Amino acid sequence: MTDTPAFEPLSIETLPERLGAVTALTDRIGTDTAAWSVREVGDGNLNLVFIVDGSDGSAIVKQALPYVRLVGDSWPLPLKRSFFEYHALVRQADRDPGRVPEIYHFDQDQALIVMEFLSPHIILRRALIEGRRLPDIGRDLGLFVARTLFRGSDLSMAARDRKADLGLFSDNVELCDITENLVFTDPYFDAPMNAHTTPQLDGIVARLRADRDLKVEAQRLKTLFSANAQTLVHGDLHTGSVMVTDTDTRVIDPEFAFYGPIAFDVGMLLANFWMSYFSQSGHEAEGSREEMRTYLLGVVEEIWSVFAAEFSTLWHTERTGMLYPRTLFEDQGDHLGAQQALDAMLADIWRDMLGFAGIEMHRRILGLAHNADFETIEDPDLRARCETRALEMGRHLAVNRCSIASMAQIRATAKRIEKEIVT
Amino acid sequence: MTDTPAFEPLSIETLPERLGAVTALTDRIGTDTAAWSVREVGDGNLNLVFIVDGSDGSAIVKQALPYVRLVGDSWPLPLKRSFFEYHALVRQADRDPGRVPEIYHFDQDQALIVMEFLSPHIILRRALIEGRRLPDIGRDLGLFVARTLFRGSDLSMAARDRKADLGLFSDNVELCDITENLVFTDPYFDAPMNAHTTPQLDGIVARLRADRDLKVEAQRLKTLFSANAQTLVHGDLHTGSVMVTDTDTRVIDPEFAFYGPIAFDVGMLLANFWMSYFSQSGHEAEGSREEMRTYLLGVVEEIWSVFAAEFSTLWHTERTGMLYPRTLFEDQGDHLGAQQALDAMLADIWRDMLGFAGIEMHRRILGLAHNADFETIEDPDLRARCETRALEMGRHLAVNRCSIASMAQIRATAKRIEKEIVT
Repeated sequence: MTDTPAFEPLSIETLPERLGAVTALTDRIGTDTAAWSVREVGDGNLNLVFIVDGSDGSAIVKQALPYVRLVGDSWPLPLKRSFFEYHALVRQADRDPGRVPEIYHFDQDQALIVMEFLSPHIILRRALIEGRRLPDIGRDLGLFVARTLFRGSDLSMAARDRKADLGLFSDNVELCDITENLVFTDPYFDAPMNAHTTPQLDGIVARLRADRDLKVEAQRLKTLFSANAQTLVHGDLHTGSVMVTDTDTRVIDPEFAFYGPIAFDVGMLLANFWMSYFSQSGHEAEGSREEMRTYLLGVVEEIWSVFAAEFSTLWHTERTGMLYPRTLFEDQGDHLGAQQALDAMLADIWRDMLGFAGIEMHRRILGLAHNADFETIEDPDLRARCETRALEMGRHLAVNRCSIASMAQIRATAKRIEKEIVT
Repeated sequence: MTDTPAFEPLSIETLPERLGAVTALTDRIGTDTAAWSVREVGDGNLNLVFIVDGSDGSAIVKQALPYVRLVGDSWPLPLKRSFFEYHALVRQADRDPGRVPEIYHFDQDQALIVMEFLSPHIILRRALIEGRRLPDIGRDLGLFVARTLFRGSDLSMAARDRKADLGLFSDNVELCDITENLVFTDPYFDAPMNAHTTPQLDGIVARLRADRDLKVEAQRLKTLFSANAQTLVHGDLHTGSVMVTDTDTRVIDPEFAFYGPIAFDVGMLLANFWMSYFSQSGHEAEGSREEMRTYLLGVVEEIWSVFAAEFSTLWHTERTGMLYPRTLFEDQGDHLGAQQALDAMLADIWRDMLGFAGIEMHRRILGLAHNADFETIEDPDLRARCETRALEMGRHLAVNRCSIASMAQIRATAKRIEKEIVT
């Protein structure tokens, strides 16, 4: 252990020398480090991200820093998040092959992951802001959440393995803490790091922060988030964590992974499509986005229907864990019993998914971490109108999640909000 | 590490020599080991338990064995359960002072705990079989569950500390596995280790094992048990885990401790009082137990009402964890918001508690581990009548838990079952 070099951030200059002996990297991009071209492209809030181009190919090098990059030394954040990202990527690759970047190399002490360079992929959020309609994302993302969330739960895993994994990821406490505070609590009071479009949103923000039912629901959902350790969730599954081409979809950046509710990933994902929907009218300078809005509501419906269908298929074909064992149902000829239990579980996931989605839509407008969907709308009055619609939708979903029965209802609600809230 | 002596079971003969140098023990019972009197009194299923009487006092020495004592080598069970028992006792002593035995010494490698000898305490289950009406147990046990369960949750603890503790107890996998299988699954099919009073119960057993709604509910509750890591639960809180005098109540044997649902401990505890209720008519040879039955229903009501009242008090006075923070409610003058959230949480606990209670009542009659309450009824026809009533009650509670509103309803149901099921 005394030989371990201390953590040292990479730089454009030092990267070739420091990683030139990693054969998993040189095998792919070439051994002539003098010919490597290195760019730093990290546009997230937390980490260093380098693209390394060599004579034979390219790779991504992602390195954690011991603090939040966006804020600096004053907000320390442990390097071990790289360890959790690595372990999450390995599990996701196993559970839904081909949907995450291939890992070439992991160095725990240096908190760095060398992985596949995705090209010509771009960030999904960016594509949606541009009005691009990706044909496969509904199917791909629906399958991804169904497969990773089912296969990481006690429906599939050996109980012993899941509990060992629960213990491992329980140490990802600092990143859970970010979600617990920034998503579920801070948006609902005047927390120091909050920001919103002001003064346009001041009225609705005050109303939401005085909304008792909403605040109680947000904390009920936080209780589920913190204690309902059903499966290994991605933990940060928004449209900025997805890279796309017209024919490929990849999910990246699972450093927030932990054992949490199945509904969390699904809800956060759909929330970001609903936010995209309400942001479109802020991007109509070059033409109507009406077809884009129709497309986005279709993607939401497809993600949910593909998720539910694939989850159901896995339930019937891969239910090898300790929950709802076949000995109690199919093996006794009681196929309807297994179906009844599946329907009940999907109803629970649906209900909680709506709640998580509603809260996510609030925190992206009221809290610290905002979305480019809205932030790129320069006119504050226009931006505030889009944001107001999303805030109203979020409140509706979070508070009424037990009485919303179908995507058709939500589609109608979204259209009504888009049409009727005009100031 | 090489100096650690290998695990070796204690015996009556070797105990004085092996523990004679433990000053935490000799300080209490005397240093003259030649004068020590040692008895082995383990009447549970898992461990060795010695009473050691010295010149100055007495102590209990509890040692785990690397297998299930009741079954033998063929069912291995790890020694580390002693580690979890020790850690649970330490936390419970902190959270509800005076309610668990005092720990004198813990030896992790030898899997032994030296602790307070409780005298003249007897096991609560035994007292109830004898028809003794203990005056304080409703209050004492209600406070115990409220305090230990509230103070071990994210309502009270720092999130970081709870997650570290969650990681620690996630390794108690073998004992969780026992509960997961023996409580929630095995009773509902013809599992090899099951036993029931036969042929008298064959009819109702077949009916329960074909009861789709019941089996689905049992597995929904198992899902909560395995994934809803709200707080550190005792994990085996039945009337055989409580020792009593007329003026003192102590809770013992938390080796099944893990992070689970608040409702689990409460439900298992109340189930054992309801089983005692239905067993009383099997113990009426020396006189009516009608007053005892009234007493038992009163204890159940008192445990729940004390639990709810103390949980509410702690909610209002010690809610220092990350859930439902005062910043969102009281600090904004919204006291009713905090009350609304508390009411919702108590409603959730009530509903799940009834489910866990119902399942516990089944597994004690259909599964491997039976209760002395029923087992000591020698006449199989009489025993089967008592058991049938408990089985019907368990089914009623588990399946209807969402629509049972009050203890008054349950009291009426219990009396109706006691009166009307006569074969």
